[in-house]
Amino acid sequence: MTHFVNGIDTVISDAIDGYLRVFGCVRLARLSSPGGAKIVLRQHIDKSKGSLISGSGSGHEPAHVGFVGEGMLTAAVCGEIFASPSVDAVLTAIRVVTGPAGCLLIVQNYAGDRLNFGLAAEKARAEVLNVEMMIVADDIAIRDAPRPRGVAGTLFVHKIAGDTAERGLELAKVKAAAEKAASAVQSIGIASTVCTISGRATPERLPEGMAELGLGIHGEPRIERISLPTANEAARMISERFGGSVKTAPALAMIINNLGGMPAIEMSLVAKAILETDIGARTQFVIGPAPLMTALDMRGFSISVLVLDRDLTEALLAPTLAPACPGARSTAPVSRVDSTETTRTAAYAPSTNAQVRRGVETVSKAIIASEADLKLLDAKVGDGDTGTTMANAARAVLGTIDQLPLANPAQLCGALADTFAKGMGRSSGVLLSILASATGHALASGSPWGAALSVGLGRMEYYGGAREGDRTMLDALRPAPQP
Amino acid sequence: MTHFVNGIDTVISDAIDGYLRVFGCVRLARLSSPGGAKIVLRQHIDKSKGSLISGSGSGHEPAHVGFVGEGMLTAAVCGEIFASPSVDAVLTAIRVVTGPAGCLLIVQNYAGDRLNFGLAAEKARAEVLNVEMMIVADDIAIRDAPRPRGVAGTLFVHKIAGDTAERGLELAKVKAAAEKAASAVQSIGIASTVCTISGRATPERLPEGMAELGLGIHGEPRIERISLPTANEAARMISERFGGSVKTAPALAMIINNLGGMPAIEMSLVAKAILETDIGARTQFVIGPAPLMTALDMRGFSISVLVLDRDLTEALLAPTLAPACPGARSTAPVSRVDSTETTRTAAYAPSTNAQVRRGVETVSKAIIASEADLKLLDAKVGDGDTGTTMANAARAVLGTIDQLPLANPAQLCGALADTFAKGMGRSSGVLLSILASATGHALASGSPWGAALSVGLGRMEYYGGAREGDRTMLDALRPAPQP
Repeated sequence: MTHFVNGIDTVISDAIDGYLRVFGCVRLARLSSPGGAKIVLRQHIDKSKGSLISGSGSGHEPAHVGFVGEGMLTAAVCGEIFASPSVDAVLTAIRVVTGPAGCLLIVQNYAGDRLNFGLAAEKARAEVLNVEMMIVADDIAIRDAPRPRGVAGTLFVHKIAGDTAERGLELAKVKAAAEKAASAVQSIGIASTVCTISGRATPERLPEGMAELGLGIHGEPRIERISLPTANEAARMISERFGGSVKTAPALAMIINNLGGMPAIEMSLVAKAILETDIGARTQFVIGPAPLMTALDMRGFSISVLVLDRDLTEALLAPTLAPACPGARSTAPVSRVDSTETTRTAAYAPSTNAQVRRGVETVSKAIIASEADLKLLDAKVGDGDTGTTMANAARAVLGTIDQLPLANPAQLCGALADTFAKGMGRSSGVLLSILASATGHALASGSPWGAALSVGLGRMEYYGGAREGDRTMLDALRPAPQP
Repeated sequence: MTHFVNGIDTVISDAIDGYLRVFGCVRLARLSSPGGAKIVLRQHIDKSKGSLISGSGSGHEPAHVGFVGEGMLTAAVCGEIFASPSVDAVLTAIRVVTGPAGCLLIVQNYAGDRLNFGLAAEKARAEVLNVEMMIVADDIAIRDAPRPRGVAGTLFVHKIAGDTAERGLELAKVKAAAEKAASAVQSIGIASTVCTISGRATPERLPEGMAELGLGIHGEPRIERISLPTANEAARMISERFGGSVKTAPALAMIINNLGGMPAIEMSLVAKAILETDIGARTQFVIGPAPLMTALDMRGFSISVLVLDRDLTEALLAPTLAPACPGARSTAPVSRVDSTETTRTAAYAPSTNAQVRRGVETVSKAIIASEADLKLLDAKVGDGDTGTTMANAARAVLGTIDQLPLANPAQLCGALADTFAKGMGRSSGVLLSILASATGHALASGSPWGAALSVGLGRMEYYGGAREGDRTMLDALRPAPQP
């Protein structure tokens, strides 16, 4: 049980209200229905245009509520988690949105949805409402399945039918556009975990290190259990499943759908992998990667592919206000900008100054001689590496002393900054490098030694975040610039 | 191990390429750097305006790569998972994007980031580049923490500094705007699982049924372990943590951030819950709910609150091309549309016809008499409930026979459709209801009985999805309309 919910009874209703508190600003509303139907719809419905209703059990958010808005759905009917909405709920939605131009129901191919939306359609017809229904069955997981499931490819149908309706075409043409899209789309998913439902035990079906290819958006099991593939392997397996016209079509659109629990960084890996396949090479537009039709927290993704023609492309790219439709973007090769940085060679030339050299050598040797003592002291409060870290820095300085610009204090500080950053490691290396770098920059700007060192210490304090009295090396260095 | 990745070594690089394959179309590019730095930047950089660089360890996607684009960041530097980018990588980014108008580094308050961005800034200054740095420390999880962490509130800083830079203001003013935003934002998160990192063991820290309030975006533990709260309790606890000017400010903006593994439906519950608190009541604009600054797959969310004034509001609402910034939306109460459906009373009046009544009674009684036989037969192939389901329907019909419009065949079919839908249950109830409803509608349209029944059977077949020969009741009904 890892879910932040209130009562199980109020999950769907509360989720709808939460969604509308944020996204209602694009003219969305909730239907107040005496029967308690859970319906999201546009605030203003232009009934001179065909309406579109979709819906299903909940748990697939943002589907379908997120796709309500100008240019896509007119209303979405929500059932309980993974349970079809009731006939009465669908009928209520039909009655409210259907005007002279009629209404199309876009239904995913599950027995419960078909029957409940179907009976609602029949009842609405008996009330002399102009209602049509069409079924989306885009899942290709099961070869030659008599009743393929409707999954994320449904979003393409919403988008294309939605644009057709928005342009004011008659209901028969809206339905024809939806059916054309539905017949041109194929989808398949893969996941490494099954979804968990609040209040029910987590299914133990998928052990670590395994994945299922072709499982459904309700966690329906699929016989094809495989060892967890890499992103590239998964993309290749999926791409090989697509058949029919997808195999040769010159132009495709793709939905890269996060099934709910995939981290964003993995979805980017998936995007790269799938776009590198043969299917990806012919993909002109992508929707996602994003959670679009999820299975609660299922860790996996699905790929939907649509064979494009000019009409479908136009409808796909048309604008929509539906908040959860991220829009189809043109794929492109990765654009690369060459670094304009010139390889900066050291901005100093070796020079000599006997007094400075003596000082640098004396300090370095003293640090090296203290290595064991420092280790011992540090071991009492830390990890005991201070002695070695400091001695390594000192050895690095001694090792390059003949190349140091000993006669130029500002340059010397810059050179030491490089040595500390490279030769010393650890936070203390970066901190001393900051000290030396900032001090050198101040010296170069004409500050005297004391003031320059103060600037350096100030920078060290700012970037390091320690303050005086925190018992860091800052406390030991603070007195140095005092006159 | 439930991760779809290729090699661990290529995760960040592949993820950047995947991201750019899809989102590069908004003029984004990757820097080709000889040192292998992982940097996403705008394709065209207007160096007459101040540039903005941010970055951090990876694993927080879409942060910060998703916030590169006109109106927000100029470039983002990516480290390995949860590891600060190197000094050299940051310096490379600075060299490439910094022109006469200079560059601001927006850095989250972690020791590694402060030091590496800090040293890079110092080195850049030594190269006479105009570089400033500011630190975001918005996490209020630890009261009076000397070094609060930088978390999702950083997005507000990106947005506000980004707009200030886009408007061409000088670097000092861009930095001042960023610091003003950073000082006006507070954030806190809660999670019910710790994140899992590919290739490392899943931490066992958070047992089922527990949550941590105030944990960090790298899974840093937080002493405050609590029983898993409801969404409302979590929202209340979080809202009570905000202090200072947030407690009284009349106008707030909020980020509702999915930490990576929360299902969308739960994020909607969270949105409702947090907007119902005292803090929510004063929230005018919301960014999210969305994954914005994640901790891989951590199951939890964070809330960031910004105290608004006119300038901050203007900068917040300004457009940006950054793909992962969903834009700030106005909160609103849930708009409700009243159902316009009139309660439709039965469209038929009781009427009598002795022959029809006899037929209905004969059939109903025959079905009731067959209950036991049907149960027995069904038990051999199904769940054994067919007898009861059918008998229930027959009993329901007999119970209402005096109210049936027996003299009007079309109306009678409609009335039977209602009885089947309500009194029978199961798929077969819906299927027979569809049959009766469609048959009645056809009769009302003037079809003779045989044709009307064919229409009804056609509908039953379409919605039910079974075909002739599938051994469903369709096979038994098919011969009925034959002449």
